[in-house]
Amino acid sequence: MISQEEVTDFVKNGHQHYLPHISIDSVIFGYHDQQLKILLLNWIGYNGWGLPGGFIQRREPLGQAANRIVRERTGLDDLFLQQFYVFGDSPYRLTERSIREFTEKFDLAADVEEGNWLFERTLSIGYFALVDYSKVTVTSDFFTDAHQWCDVNNIPDLLFDHNDVVEKALTTLRQQIYHQPIGYNLLPEKFTLPEIHRLYETILGKELDPRNFSKKLLTLGLIKKLDEQRSIGPHRSPYLYQFEKEAYDFALRQGIVHTY
Amino acid sequence: MISQEEVTDFVKNGHQHYLPHISIDSVIFGYHDQQLKILLLNWIGYNGWGLPGGFIQRREPLGQAANRIVRERTGLDDLFLQQFYVFGDSPYRLTERSIREFTEKFDLAADVEEGNWLFERTLSIGYFALVDYSKVTVTSDFFTDAHQWCDVNNIPDLLFDHNDVVEKALTTLRQQIYHQPIGYNLLPEKFTLPEIHRLYETILGKELDPRNFSKKLLTLGLIKKLDEQRSIGPHRSPYLYQFEKEAYDFALRQGIVHTY
Repeated sequence: MISQEEVTDFVKNGHQHYLPHISIDSVIFGYHDQQLKILLLNWIGYNGWGLPGGFIQRREPLGQAANRIVRERTGLDDLFLQQFYVFGDSPYRLTERSIREFTEKFDLAADVEEGNWLFERTLSIGYFALVDYSKVTVTSDFFTDAHQWCDVNNIPDLLFDHNDVVEKALTTLRQQIYHQPIGYNLLPEKFTLPEIHRLYETILGKELDPRNFSKKLLTLGLIKKLDEQRSIGPHRSPYLYQFEKEAYDFALRQGIVHTY
Repeated sequence: MISQEEVTDFVKNGHQHYLPHISIDSVIFGYHDQQLKILLLNWIGYNGWGLPGGFIQRREPLGQAANRIVRERTGLDDLFLQQFYVFGDSPYRLTERSIREFTEKFDLAADVEEGNWLFERTLSIGYFALVDYSKVTVTSDFFTDAHQWCDVNNIPDLLFDHNDVVEKALTTLRQQIYHQPIGYNLLPEKFTLPEIHRLYETILGKELDPRNFSKKLLTLGLIKKLDEQRSIGPHRSPYLYQFEKEAYDFALRQGIVHTY
């Protein structure tokens, strides 16, 4: 656990280590029990649910900062992480009230001067991550004391503009679902057509004709059929499929696979 | 023209009016003579070509700042303007040399102290705009003294990471070409199928089967056929088409039309 002294130092001098006016918010998607979920943290100072986030170190490349922030929260490395939007239309994201609650909670009132970097206007760069739900170990930091995986259909009122951030992440995810092997980290390595079909229906929030759907994925080259079946009962042994690894690697490098 | 005093004030005290560490770079696309072009400015201080850009005022919403910056350069309002990426993987975008050249050029050496806001690490938010080439009046500012419309196939070496910015803008434009009425500001209000076909081939940099192409645009609902023909010669009077205005307005509000 971090000490009061360290918290005070972060609040007073954090701008010497981090760039002020810019933060990163991450929407971490996981898939479980046929639900698409995101990771929410309870922020102590503000007493509400919000997205995991953090600041960019003074000399740290942006992509590296986003990776570090998600890794620190989830324990995962090498994940699918994509920038999707900068949120900066509200001149101020923090209200006087939330600053007062925060400083009181952390006993900082005497240390927070007007113009403190943490309470200045901050633009936020949104990243979304796709993770294997079962491999995540959530770590709190000194500003958060609880977490939950929340179904995207039941997101509560979040802090700041985080509901907009989630909404835009979902829209981006849906737009890219046939351009990238989105499901790669959300399904087991080998899966049946009904499994990926359910995943895509869950993400898109609508029904998809099973026959057209599988044809489309195969035509786009996102998945390939394996010479392997899974036995799930008498007379029932569906073929297994796999994401095209090269397409995935290409997507990781390029951001997007198909440009038409 | 702006005075030396005003330049000095901007360099010394600009951070009181603008957010430090974040800038906006704009890739302004125009279509002319079957070429897709972008607007480049010659930056006096650095003696090289770069993209039009600027800073965000302390209380100015981000989207408004992007609009203002493009309006100041082009004289155009109400344009199609879309955020596409934040560039921040190089810890520093300015070299010692470019700072020295800049300060010498503007006779600022004595005024620029270590840690001056303009030469600190700056992330850049990329926006692309689609404009009617013929309506643009380019205005220089005190850091630029010339401009050119440059074919996207012949972009010279640009300042900073601007070549990456242009590359990413082009990729985004190409990815979205069937999702948004991209051509709306690049073609006259009413156009023939061969005209939009040439535009799309130019943007994508490849040949498109004319029949499939027009079928696709009509199926997607991006354009509609008018009950109107243009006479271009004996026995030649092709039908005119128009972008679906509602789809365009929706795109302006949402950023993207089709989410599959």
